[in-house]
Amino acid sequence: MKILVASTNRGKIREIADILSSADVTIFTPDQIVITVDVQEDGATFEENALKKAAAYRDVAEMSALADDSGLCVDALDGAPGVMSARFAGPNASDADNIERLLKAMHKMQNRKARFVCVVALALTSGELITAQGDYPGLITEAPMGSGGFGYDPVFYDPTTGKTFAELCQEEKNRVSHRKRALIALREKLQNQGYIKP
Amino acid sequence: MKILVASTNRGKIREIADILSSADVTIFTPDQIVITVDVQEDGATFEENALKKAAAYRDVAEMSALADDSGLCVDALDGAPGVMSARFAGPNASDADNIERLLKAMHKMQNRKARFVCVVALALTSGELITAQGDYPGLITEAPMGSGGFGYDPVFYDPTTGKTFAELCQEEKNRVSHRKRALIALREKLQNQGYIKP
Repeated sequence: MKILVASTNRGKIREIADILSSADVTIFTPDQIVITVDVQEDGATFEENALKKAAAYRDVAEMSALADDSGLCVDALDGAPGVMSARFAGPNASDADNIERLLKAMHKMQNRKARFVCVVALALTSGELITAQGDYPGLITEAPMGSGGFGYDPVFYDPTTGKTFAELCQEEKNRVSHRKRALIALREKLQNQGYIKP
Repeated sequence: MKILVASTNRGKIREIADILSSADVTIFTPDQIVITVDVQEDGATFEENALKKAAAYRDVAEMSALADDSGLCVDALDGAPGVMSARFAGPNASDADNIERLLKAMHKMQNRKARFVCVVALALTSGELITAQGDYPGLITEAPMGSGGFGYDPVFYDPTTGKTFAELCQEEKNRVSHRKRALIALREKLQNQGYIKP
């Protein structure tokens, strides 16, 4: 049995551990627990999901918290899979399942335009909420190419490098990251609003 | 500005830190945050306060949690100061203030019997709540004696050692701890109910 001691008083913790620790009981202290907040990412938009997660962490940690949500938006599919990106082919879909469903949905479609989208949300302790979005445009291939990355990377073709995201090395991918773009946009907002110095 | 990143993904955390860290911004990760749960100890009994605190920590940490509440109960004052022990002389009362108020309230009283009481509460993840109480009897002196301990220790006379708790060394005090008695009672309950081996 694992027991968390609801105290930061060292003397009290030692007294409790002395008496209760045994082969059956392991005593944990608050500084050994990593905060995990279960948030259902069931929002209608990336922004909604990111805000929900950031606010939940802020409330538990009593500290300004940053969260993100991201996915793939395909023009010809009216922005789908969007917030459903991770579960496009079902609740426990693998990357391969999701890719298969996407390629079927886009079979013989001419317009292959798509974007990776990331929204970052900052929930401040003051209650204020700040969000920023980053997009990276590309094209959906007819078949997967490359073995790197994850998610839809093997079918996301980047015209700038002439490769799918699964064919890019981590460093190249970081350079074109939609999350990076969102974070840079957030940094600018924080600077403009005087939260941080330019 | 301190910002908690609502993620345990190392790559994501690094990307965020790279872009947002600055002289103004310090990035924290969930494993750097010590859980602190603000619980109003406003219950009518030690048990109520201990249960409230244990349940709050259990809910945040999603782990069985143990909390305690304790105080001094004086027979001639119908158990007061009891749950008000820490704020007997007011919301921000010092130990000296509380002792002064106690000695005034007991001025010329013959019956000096009192008990230090501790209730420990274990809130299990199953939802079950287990509590146990430990008492240590003594007598309230006419004036403070000794400089050790804290709270009401200088006016709590222990007939077994012939000293006030403020005159005992830490080791002697641990031996007669009301919290220790509560923990031993809890351990017995856990053994009897099959949660841990005898």
